[in-house]
Amino acid sequence: MENKTEFIFKPIGYVRNKSVSVPRHWSVSDIEGELVIDSQYKDGIKDIKAKEKICVIFCFHKSPPFSQEKLTQKPPHIDAEKGVFSICSPYRPNPIGLSVLEVLEKSENVIKVRRLDMLDGTPILDIKPYVEYKEF
Amino acid sequence: MENKTEFIFKPIGYVRNKSVSVPRHWSVSDIEGELVIDSQYKDGIKDIKAKEKICVIFCFHKSPPFSQEKLTQKPPHIDAEKGVFSICSPYRPNPIGLSVLEVLEKSENVIKVRRLDMLDGTPILDIKPYVEYKEF
Repeated sequence: MENKTEFIFKPIGYVRNKSVSVPRHWSVSDIEGELVIDSQYKDGIKDIKAKEKICVIFCFHKSPPFSQEKLTQKPPHIDAEKGVFSICSPYRPNPIGLSVLEVLEKSENVIKVRRLDMLDGTPILDIKPYVEYKEF
Repeated sequence: MENKTEFIFKPIGYVRNKSVSVPRHWSVSDIEGELVIDSQYKDGIKDIKAKEKICVIFCFHKSPPFSQEKLTQKPPHIDAEKGVFSICSPYRPNPIGLSVLEVLEKSENVIKVRRLDMLDGTPILDIKPYVEYKEF
């Protein structure tokens, strides 16, 4: 067992989104916006290209602190109380979000994306290639 | 712009994996192991069921601190230097990992999984449903 009990992460950039509200999930979003990456990390996005799908890991920075009664929640589109680890609610023990976005274009440190479900100013923690699950 | 500069996360559980080494990525792994969830969070996994795919967000807890020269890296299976945000290397500005695993079975607070690419003792930060990217 690992005994380190907490981990500290710093944003690599922020979301720029002019929409006032966002859909509940990236899979039902058609919203466009930008991922503005801190200039010190720009070499890290050099291979991100238009039409790719990317996984963006971010903070739900507007979520209130988690409390035990949120371990089950009724999502807006499902008529049942679900365990928090089976839904995408922003109220989670660790307020970490994951969205799969389509890249529209990229300049030196700005990635223009589609399918945003993140609020303006959302801190971005990581970007990874999207890999689809396939049996083998 | 959000001015909060760091975020603190605590593990919700740990990986139990008897394999001494792991493949470079979940998509090429057939390893089985367990996600042992802290008992305080067991209600949160009540709806996770066998045969489902889940996204597991975790810490690369064995990675050394990140340094700028790692902004591009040559992955073991690709003959080119790639931007860190286009590859799945454990050496990242924030050492966050993401694996899509198949659930084999679940007891009260233990999820038995397949396709593990995480070392024994890896701290788990979050679990989410796997949602495939589809055009609409």
